[in-house]
Amino acid sequence: MRLIVIGGDAAGMSAASQARRLLKPGDLDIAAFERGEYTSYSACGIPYWVGGLVDGPDGLIARDPAAHRANGIEVHTGHEVTGIDLRSRTVTVRSSGADRTESFDHLVYAAGATPVRPAWADTPAKGIFGVQTLGDAAALQEWLEPGRDTAVVIGAGYIGVEMAEALQRRGLRVTLVERAGQPMSTVDPDMGALVADSIRGLGIALRTGVTVQGLETADGQVRAVVTDDGVLPADVVVLGLGVRPNTALADAAGLPLGVTGALATDLRQRVTGPDGIVEGVWAAGDCTQVTHLVSGRPAHIPLGTHANKQGRVAGINIGGGYATFPGVIGTAITKICDLEVARTGLSSKEAEAAGFRYVTATVESTNRAGYFPGAVPMTVKVIAEKDTGLLLGAQIVGRAEAAKRIDAFAVAVWNRMTVTEMTALDLGYAPPYAPVWDPVLIAARKAGDAL
Amino acid sequence: MRLIVIGGDAAGMSAASQARRLLKPGDLDIAAFERGEYTSYSACGIPYWVGGLVDGPDGLIARDPAAHRANGIEVHTGHEVTGIDLRSRTVTVRSSGADRTESFDHLVYAAGATPVRPAWADTPAKGIFGVQTLGDAAALQEWLEPGRDTAVVIGAGYIGVEMAEALQRRGLRVTLVERAGQPMSTVDPDMGALVADSIRGLGIALRTGVTVQGLETADGQVRAVVTDDGVLPADVVVLGLGVRPNTALADAAGLPLGVTGALATDLRQRVTGPDGIVEGVWAAGDCTQVTHLVSGRPAHIPLGTHANKQGRVAGINIGGGYATFPGVIGTAITKICDLEVARTGLSSKEAEAAGFRYVTATVESTNRAGYFPGAVPMTVKVIAEKDTGLLLGAQIVGRAEAAKRIDAFAVAVWNRMTVTEMTALDLGYAPPYAPVWDPVLIAARKAGDAL
Repeated sequence: MRLIVIGGDAAGMSAASQARRLLKPGDLDIAAFERGEYTSYSACGIPYWVGGLVDGPDGLIARDPAAHRANGIEVHTGHEVTGIDLRSRTVTVRSSGADRTESFDHLVYAAGATPVRPAWADTPAKGIFGVQTLGDAAALQEWLEPGRDTAVVIGAGYIGVEMAEALQRRGLRVTLVERAGQPMSTVDPDMGALVADSIRGLGIALRTGVTVQGLETADGQVRAVVTDDGVLPADVVVLGLGVRPNTALADAAGLPLGVTGALATDLRQRVTGPDGIVEGVWAAGDCTQVTHLVSGRPAHIPLGTHANKQGRVAGINIGGGYATFPGVIGTAITKICDLEVARTGLSSKEAEAAGFRYVTATVESTNRAGYFPGAVPMTVKVIAEKDTGLLLGAQIVGRAEAAKRIDAFAVAVWNRMTVTEMTALDLGYAPPYAPVWDPVLIAARKAGDAL
Repeated sequence: MRLIVIGGDAAGMSAASQARRLLKPGDLDIAAFERGEYTSYSACGIPYWVGGLVDGPDGLIARDPAAHRANGIEVHTGHEVTGIDLRSRTVTVRSSGADRTESFDHLVYAAGATPVRPAWADTPAKGIFGVQTLGDAAALQEWLEPGRDTAVVIGAGYIGVEMAEALQRRGLRVTLVERAGQPMSTVDPDMGALVADSIRGLGIALRTGVTVQGLETADGQVRAVVTDDGVLPADVVVLGLGVRPNTALADAAGLPLGVTGALATDLRQRVTGPDGIVEGVWAAGDCTQVTHLVSGRPAHIPLGTHANKQGRVAGINIGGGYATFPGVIGTAITKICDLEVARTGLSSKEAEAAGFRYVTATVESTNRAGYFPGAVPMTVKVIAEKDTGLLLGAQIVGRAEAAKRIDAFAVAVWNRMTVTEMTALDLGYAPPYAPVWDPVLIAARKAGDAL
């Protein structure tokens, strides 16, 4: 049997590694094709490399091609899969300008995602970067030479904010442009306002409610970003407008796409369409669609943590084991200088869109007992279904020991707890770590009162 | 209607405050009797006061008698309740040597607990301290004058370890004596060994497997602790041998005690015995028994977090509302210098005692992505029921951002998750906060493999 993996990052190589763990070479031969140079790396670490906190690219690589080969997986970097033939069960692979055909019994489609590039960014001018792959980051690093000291980051989602901070840390003057009225629209406006304050506190020029209309270029490189609120000089432009699943190849091969444009799968990561499961074809990572377990709806939430889990599940199933990936609940955390931002479940806007009637409660508390040295404020917001009290989501903004507290909410959301039941939870308490009423419990209590 | 509260700390005053919130003076008059000087304080903060990290006693007081009075609660400090007459529904109160009788419709029994004092500690000699009340701590602080520079702490549970560190921080030479083979017997021996290393690393002389036989005293004060492994000089002796519920008064009044010796209650904190509920008599805090929701057994786990919750529940119910305290799952966390120690559910020994067949899995991971600055090791142990995979308990030892990760396990234990289901959990991930596979998930995975 032969497994071909398209894409050599987290999802694809997790699948390959798990399948290899269960089946020996001979029983299962594995070939992975990666069009870039690197395998199994942390794209999430890119802002920290750009910001100079982490040595890259090597520091961000969990397992390089040699390590995968030592593990019995053929890895071919610089190889792009350009076609899939489901009838003959072959793929066409291009390398150094030459095509060849490779056959498979199982195919893992893990082609990832690509930064959204609006029409106005479609220029040969240099200095415009999406940040999705290590290759993108390496190109940006090369571009950041002395004299190029003015950056505009477009889009204030997670990546945009992280990249703005990284470039600021590198000494550039940074403007962060966001079309919405707040940065990080994944959290509610009141929490977004706290994030905005923190971004501005870093010295980054945050411009919300501003739409980009185009770029000015000269001498083959970008010079400015033109917006509906003025022209912003720029030696470097970073696109933080989100990503789109790389599904063109799948679509061309006749694989069914989900409603989000990403590949839909069953619980075991088998590609699934209106006609059912496509036998022997698996998908994992940023190119796939997930089920949001709170809204019950399909979603496209490209995150490394999901990619790793989905790849593992696909690999175990290919190897003859049994594993499932039931879905996600929208947990995400990030750090903006010393500000920690976290969310899980649905935001108010998402709860509204899903059709929930809901109440919210916001509390101000501290990370430690108020009297303990190092106690700093923390804001916790809870969103609960009206009448039932079902916990729909939670958001946390704080200055220390805040973000990972979202996990308690995440496990509660996962288990469909009500806020009233949550008030009884036996969470860890000691003065260096929490007030005697943990902020999580206070927020749940207050949401209970609001019902 | 009149409510009398016995005990002015967390449990009693939470009950009083909640009842007051729901019922006005006139509808409900509230009198609280506290034999000590302080109300509503954080006993858990005492080690940090002794260690000089926190200004005491005021810094540890959440709400003093004047604040309670302003809230419409009569508070009488220096008043000891010496008798309860359930037939006449009165209590006898002693103050300044005089007794008086006070009547009640509702009685909240929140008399707390007292440090275990073995027969050998029954001496009038000075310099021997249990640490349970602010009064105890104030007396210890007064004793710690220059020249008294050698301390022996007996018992290496949470309080013993915290007090040993506090005295060490104050500049004393500290020996910590523990009869068991490890400090903190609430965690498994392998985790206890990590704690032992940390305690010794602080310069504290930790002596495990050593039994105290008596004290040497002279000139009315303690001089040494006599053990089966030698005589330990001591100007100060701290008893960290646990606490016993203060139920003598309840027992004398004919209130039924639970199998642990503490007062048993129903879910609403009504005192309950073989003959059913004792109408109008409530109990909360360190004098009460709880249900351990994993073992299903009654337990006595005196912790401020439970006391606050139970008091709140009693007060809401007295006030005509509805609230329940279903029980605990044994969550506890502590800090030993820079070591963070956490547990929830059952330890291996407790799982054994409860009759579970179980497997364990231990993993070494990091608090942050391995490449991120400040990443330090973290050890996570999971205990799961054999065959079913039910998560029975978890323990974490780490050096930063470790302890509160136990909350994810705590919510999982609470919801009776299996370790296999846990591997799919959508926990927060970003390089400054976690590896892409969170240590919680890795441990759950490994426990799944061990099944």
